[in-house]
Amino acid sequence: MPVINVAKHCKNVLKYLNGTGAFYIKGADTSIHPDSDSELRFYQDSNMLYISGVAEPGFSFVYDINNHKSILFAPYISPDEAVWIGSQPSHDEIKQTYGVDQVHSMTDFETVIKSINPQTLYRIDYQSDAQVSALNLNINSESLLKAIHEARIYKEPEEIAILQKASDISSRAHALLMKNNYVGQNECNVHADFVGSIMNQGSNREAYTTIVGRGRNASTLHYIRNDSPIEDPTDLVLVDAGASYKGYSADITRTWPAGKTFTKEAKEIYQIVLDMQTAVLDASKPHVQWEDMHMLAMKVAAQGLLKLGILKGSLDEVMDSYIVGYFFPHGLGHFLGIDTHDCAGYPEGVPRINKPSIRYLRVRREMLPGMVFTVEPGLYFVHDLIEEARNTPELAKYVDFDVVQKYFKVGGVRIEDNIVITEDGILNLTTAPKTVEDLEKIKNSE
Amino acid sequence: MPVINVAKHCKNVLKYLNGTGAFYIKGADTSIHPDSDSELRFYQDSNMLYISGVAEPGFSFVYDINNHKSILFAPYISPDEAVWIGSQPSHDEIKQTYGVDQVHSMTDFETVIKSINPQTLYRIDYQSDAQVSALNLNINSESLLKAIHEARIYKEPEEIAILQKASDISSRAHALLMKNNYVGQNECNVHADFVGSIMNQGSNREAYTTIVGRGRNASTLHYIRNDSPIEDPTDLVLVDAGASYKGYSADITRTWPAGKTFTKEAKEIYQIVLDMQTAVLDASKPHVQWEDMHMLAMKVAAQGLLKLGILKGSLDEVMDSYIVGYFFPHGLGHFLGIDTHDCAGYPEGVPRINKPSIRYLRVRREMLPGMVFTVEPGLYFVHDLIEEARNTPELAKYVDFDVVQKYFKVGGVRIEDNIVITEDGILNLTTAPKTVEDLEKIKNSE
Repeated sequence: MPVINVAKHCKNVLKYLNGTGAFYIKGADTSIHPDSDSELRFYQDSNMLYISGVAEPGFSFVYDINNHKSILFAPYISPDEAVWIGSQPSHDEIKQTYGVDQVHSMTDFETVIKSINPQTLYRIDYQSDAQVSALNLNINSESLLKAIHEARIYKEPEEIAILQKASDISSRAHALLMKNNYVGQNECNVHADFVGSIMNQGSNREAYTTIVGRGRNASTLHYIRNDSPIEDPTDLVLVDAGASYKGYSADITRTWPAGKTFTKEAKEIYQIVLDMQTAVLDASKPHVQWEDMHMLAMKVAAQGLLKLGILKGSLDEVMDSYIVGYFFPHGLGHFLGIDTHDCAGYPEGVPRINKPSIRYLRVRREMLPGMVFTVEPGLYFVHDLIEEARNTPELAKYVDFDVVQKYFKVGGVRIEDNIVITEDGILNLTTAPKTVEDLEKIKNSE
Repeated sequence: MPVINVAKHCKNVLKYLNGTGAFYIKGADTSIHPDSDSELRFYQDSNMLYISGVAEPGFSFVYDINNHKSILFAPYISPDEAVWIGSQPSHDEIKQTYGVDQVHSMTDFETVIKSINPQTLYRIDYQSDAQVSALNLNINSESLLKAIHEARIYKEPEEIAILQKASDISSRAHALLMKNNYVGQNECNVHADFVGSIMNQGSNREAYTTIVGRGRNASTLHYIRNDSPIEDPTDLVLVDAGASYKGYSADITRTWPAGKTFTKEAKEIYQIVLDMQTAVLDASKPHVQWEDMHMLAMKVAAQGLLKLGILKGSLDEVMDSYIVGYFFPHGLGHFLGIDTHDCAGYPEGVPRINKPSIRYLRVRREMLPGMVFTVEPGLYFVHDLIEEARNTPELAKYVDFDVVQKYFKVGGVRIEDNIVITEDGILNLTTAPKTVEDLEKIKNSE
């Protein structure tokens, strides 16, 4: 079974590319560390992966639009090289593996393109054009990338199945971490066990740089040092980590107590974040605007923080002030797919909303079936942002800084699931435990 | 404690760089995946790591030769960025961490260089010169890299301590794998457990692309798919894997039976490879030529293969024919340090020896104290090489292909340790078990 349906993906691209001739996508090559012969970790070009499913170096892809033919170009491996890297599959085998119409050797690239003789050859402008610039063709570098980006927004069933698998692998790894006792260990041990678990389940790497932050470290949004001792059982541990599977990403966050139970303050903040997420999951369905979901999460946060006395004033005043953005300073979530922050979050001409928190929102679109989002509300006690609020009179009046002080140790809480928009609601791909009750039960089960 | 002794490393470079003024090394920046915002795994420039010990992105280094001053330039982090990545250490803290004389912000690069006003600014030619080309200085791009390469050959005590730690982490991980039973599992599980183990011990990544090859897969020298089921307990499993620690590499190979015991044939081949390694370890000491060690390993292999009847003829004839190179097709070992294949294996003007096997030797040097080598003999039954020998009359006459057939299933055996040349011999950094007796004992200990 091919990884993805190449014919379908090409058709999807052609919905947004009104052209004749052919389009060309260059796959990534192996990268070598400078001044050495060390191969670096391989990352396939995301657009090549979308169109072909190929996650190996040295391949390129051409689609003959007029004749509806998908063509994969495989790297040429000399007999000498084959001794070192093993005998390679035949072109017929490659054809079967990826479900393309033709496979040729990269050495025949020029001949094949000349035989197609495309009126226009569409290419992606950020990719090297060494392969095509010598061919003296009518080249268009403007339309293809936009078309692929639009196509990538709507996931095909086989892509959703891969994303489900990436999420399953990651959910199981997160569940495993919760079961372990890391008090007396280090953030790096949490990270190590996550990587060991996803690789043991067939993922070849993390989808993105894992964040493991205990206690106050969780208030650094992009904390990736992951090297602090975990000593205090009353600390929370925030783990933002996902597996890459067949080139697609999971992106999941869980936050749990290092010891057996939440502190009162940790539980209160945690429950607000979970309420933010639940409200968004319940409200998500086709034709809802994503920025409205962000504002819904903000509102639930405002209500919760008002109840705790961290914020003061009326709900309307608090919402109008955007003070919540100082405790929830990032966007609610983003498109997820091949890239962890998947492409095309903003349609052409749609600007960012320049207000705290929502200015970082990575998507402003109408939710439509086939879209895949992360839903990742969070609340944090970020020192610098609290000081900024304190020093801004029109914000400071909505904050009780004495109460904030009581919650400072909580650091930060984020809960992140991966969802697919369906015809009438959502499918939640993420199954790792997340209620206070479930987490405390797991923590007490040894 | 700084990672390395910056003043000493600069002094080492100046032994080979007869110049006045200053030298400049640019550290690597974070790389972003094309058409996305995903940060790729960070790899520091190896020469920057040698001179500064810095393994974080965005730093650069200048040494003021006339005034013996080491200067580190730290990336500028804006208050906005600090909310996301956390508050950064002060320049004083960075000075302490890395043991340099001065720390400045990268934004002050031009001012600082102008105040040094170097007669010549030495730089590395493969690095971007955007930072210095505007300064209108007398630039030399030819001498610095050669000087650093020569300096990097001889490891300082603190570098050997780091390499020992990288090797210890890796040896423990290898020992752990031997204890597990992978029959019924997959090569990927061996790989996963290795990565989990080294990360749990404080390594942040593998030093190079891990090879896990069971049975015939081990006959592919650079087999990195690591995705075959391990079903046959009579298969060998070859694991070539090392941890990166503080930017330095371990590079260790162990080969062990998937089940509880070696087959007769596997044991015979394994013992020859161990004999090849033992002979080299015993003979290694200052002033011995490394290519002589390669030929010693070849000779021990020839003796062993003659005894098994795989080869035939006199030892001298067999050695002169280089037929052993068809079963031991790679070099005996290489320099090890920051890079897994560390720099400067060939002094200027020394060519490769164009004969089977030894043509791939990565070092032709006199062994001297402070050098660090891998010693990694191997024997393999590579289909394509055996066929090549069969079809070459002057080689075929030394091979009994019927006997070869009996050993074909063994696939390949490699045993690789990391050694330091000392004043009177070697220090072996690698402690993972490797005798037939020890391996079978471990395999039977559950």
